Amino acid sequence: MTDSAYRDDRAHVFHSWSAQRALTPTVLAGGEGSWFWDGEGRRYLDFSSQLVNLNLGHQHPRVVAAIQEQAAKLCTVAPTFANDARSEAARLIAEVAPGDLSHVFFTNGGTEAVEHALRMARLTTGRHKILSAYRSYHGATAGAITLTGDPRRWGSEPSIPGVVRFFGPYPYRSAFHATTVREECDRALEHLEQVFTLEGPHTVAAVILETVVGTNGILVPPDGYLAGVRDLCDRYGALLICDEVMSGFGRCGEWFAADRWGVVPDLITFAKGVNSGYVPLGGVVLGPRVYEAFAERPYPGGLTYSGHPLACAAAVATIGAMRDEGVLERVRDLGSTLIGPRLAEIAARHPSVGDVRGLGFFWAIELVRDRDTREMLVPYNAAGADAAPMAELVAACKERGLWPFTHFNRVHVVPPCVTSEADLDTGLDILDEVLTLADRHYTGKEA
Amino acid sequence: MTDSAYRDDRAHVFHSWSAQRALTPTVLAGGEGSWFWDGEGRRYLDFSSQLVNLNLGHQHPRVVAAIQEQAAKLCTVAPTFANDARSEAARLIAEVAPGDLSHVFFTNGGTEAVEHALRMARLTTGRHKILSAYRSYHGATAGAITLTGDPRRWGSEPSIPGVVRFFGPYPYRSAFHATTVREECDRALEHLEQVFTLEGPHTVAAVILETVVGTNGILVPPDGYLAGVRDLCDRYGALLICDEVMSGFGRCGEWFAADRWGVVPDLITFAKGVNSGYVPLGGVVLGPRVYEAFAERPYPGGLTYSGHPLACAAAVATIGAMRDEGVLERVRDLGSTLIGPRLAEIAARHPSVGDVRGLGFFWAIELVRDRDTREMLVPYNAAGADAAPMAELVAACKERGLWPFTHFNRVHVVPPCVTSEADLDTGLDILDEVLTLADRHYTGKEA
Ligand SMILES: Cc1ncc(COP(=O)(O)O)c(C=O)c1O
Ligand SMILES: Cc1ncc(COP(=O)(O)O)c(C=O)c1O
Repeated sequence: MTDSAYRDDRAHVFHSWSAQRALTPTVLAGGEGSWFWDGEGRRYLDFSSQLVNLNLGHQHPRVVAAIQEQAAKLCTVAPTFANDARSEAARLIAEVAPGDLSHVFFTNGGTEAVEHALRMARLTTGRHKILSAYRSYHGATAGAITLTGDPRRWGSEPSIPGVVRFFGPYPYRSAFHATTVREECDRALEHLEQVFTLEGPHTVAAVILETVVGTNGILVPPDGYLAGVRDLCDRYGALLICDEVMSGFGRCGEWFAADRWGVVPDLITFAKGVNSGYVPLGGVVLGPRVYEAFAERPYPGGLTYSGHPLACAAAVATIGAMRDEGVLERVRDLGSTLIGPRLAEIAARHPSVGDVRGLGFFWAIELVRDRDTREMLVPYNAAGADAAPMAELVAACKERGLWPFTHFNRVHVVPPCVTSEADLDTGLDILDEVLTLADRHYTGKEA
Repeated sequence: MTDSAYRDDRAHVFHSWSAQRALTPTVLAGGEGSWFWDGEGRRYLDFSSQLVNLNLGHQHPRVVAAIQEQAAKLCTVAPTFANDARSEAARLIAEVAPGDLSHVFFTNGGTEAVEHALRMARLTTGRHKILSAYRSYHGATAGAITLTGDPRRWGSEPSIPGVVRFFGPYPYRSAFHATTVREECDRALEHLEQVFTLEGPHTVAAVILETVVGTNGILVPPDGYLAGVRDLCDRYGALLICDEVMSGFGRCGEWFAADRWGVVPDLITFAKGVNSGYVPLGGVVLGPRVYEAFAERPYPGGLTYSGHPLACAAAVATIGAMRDEGVLERVRDLGSTLIGPRLAEIAARHPSVGDVRGLGFFWAIELVRDRDTREMLVPYNAAGADAAPMAELVAACKERGLWPFTHFNRVHVVPPCVTSEADLDTGLDILDEVLTLADRHYTGKEA
């Protein structure tokens, strides 16, 4: 079985974001909770939650049962109908969404959610420009990839017109020469306001940002930043789109990370954690301003599987499980009492650890060659030999049974939200051990 | 249950392609084979296959069981791994794909499949322009909607650069003043060649077309047209992308409609019928030219749920069921011995039927006010009062327990491929009856 899985993969599967020939994918044969195993029975502790979607871990019994029951009842229904699974998922998502957000447009994943949010924003405001941040990922179709502020968009340019990029706050590598977090926040807002002014505020339909930036570095916005962006949007009549595909549904210890700062966006995009990816699902949550724009005039967008019953049934079970099991509380608690403190210890022990940041089950370790210059352990967007120091780390983790998430010069700590304290400790012990490899590349003064 | 499904839908679900306030969606409570029922137990014979995706009908036991078993085993896996369900689905799809098409890039639906095919074509050829047809639908994200040649793109313009539109063959409303099908074919090819010439052949990455145009009218290409397009692409070094999201997996009595004409495209996009939409799934099948372009250099695209195991397990079961139950043969047979002949009779009886065309379980009845002028029963893209004659027809079908598929001035006959002969007759009887309503708007000479 494993042999044919591997063989057929190599002969017939074209993989995401990869050069195809040299791939030697691990066969993922099964999983439970925070663990999975390959065809030879080798077990891995998953500190990447697959693609940061597996918030409830593998094979949560309640979600599995919900899928099986819905499959027995009704597997599919066109978007034009009403359906109980879809209705209930929409009601629950509206319940957990901030403020007056009330309606859900369902998609199959995060990319499509962003595409539809983009269209809704343009048509609601009658304006064309979208401001999006450097160091962001929003998806891989023509619109979402243009909004993306990382190298993944380069291969798709030129793409849609009207996207303008700004710098978000990133205290460790300030684009604004700020020396405190407070200063970074103020200057980032001043910068964004300048972009509005110079672009012409009346041309700007929306600002889109990841509430907490995910793949590009777990950049937690300074207190006050989100509220400041909200104010700018209000002042200029633009919509605020929070992309919570990665940060939502428990990852930050909230239903939506925006809750942490009490900010209500006009549009929220979600996917991943909404049902842990058990069935492809994403969507846009929208409030009255956008709803009213399409109350009497047709919304020009859709998809065959909008509000898929199997996916929605899995979302209903996921939200139920998260509530009944106190997942959000657990994530907030262990994030601040276990993961955060242990990462601080690790940082103290390893000179190569330049910065540690995060919240909930959403953390980054940023690796450097020099704490003073903050030279990255590997260059921005490094590949091949340039990326070797990170590849070594990854290999060392896997040898020890830990499946890590890495990006550029960072290791992210993004385990399932149900990972036991013992397993968190195990994984962090392994990271602590292997970071010695990164220290070998350290060229700065000993910290 | 039905009450709350309706109430929660109206309060919380934002629907595709619609003005939201006035919607009164039918609650779809359950289904079996070609039938579904609403909350009050009212049953409908589904002549639309939901959104032309339900090729195996509702709740096919083998596919339901496969989903349940896979759910018990493993619900989700990141794209980077190999997985048995994904590998097997890819192998089976490559098996049924024409010619040397060997690899599958999986997406969640048709739109994303088209987006990735577009990117693959541009990067493989190093060229930018894509030629796409008027009267086509390719999806709703920024790239796919730009490729779309129907009014659904209007709300999203301007969008990606580099898309050039051409006219495909449509004998009943020839853009080329052709008087025979043969002439239409020759002139459509001549037109496409002119577009190549005037755009600069070396700037054209690909031609994309629906092998048999679906929503925009079931336009079956004349014999020789596809082969002619293939020749043009070869001559100019462009790729041929066949969008088989609607036409594939049984709808035309073939795995892929291109098989009917023995043409091998460079890229095929699929979704819908691949697993009847039981779990969201789409993808791109690609051959050596595209594979080699990304053998050593990374493909810059991906998605979290690429090759989702639940979706792939449903595809494996679907292909197995189609083979074991002889679905393709049945569709070919009943298309030409039952549906085609009965539609010809209907056309003979109803002056408002201007044209009938199709193959397999994929037919259109085009309604006119005058057979000589071919004036459409309702104008192109009619809405509101202008569309009343079509709305009347739809209401009359539903009253009689038939759920029709209509678009502009057409009724499509696109039932599940497993619909019994008796049910096909029932549905066609109802159409025959209600078309009397369309005849009332007939203003031409009696035919
Ligand atoms: C913030 C964010 N937005 C959008 C996406 C795209 O989601 P998907 O891969 O489901 O299309 C991702 C995926 O990682 C993401 O992290
Ligand atoms: C030919 C064609 N391509 C693409 C699509 C888009 O597919 P999806 O709605 O799954 O995104 C459709 C949907 O109807 C289609 O008919």
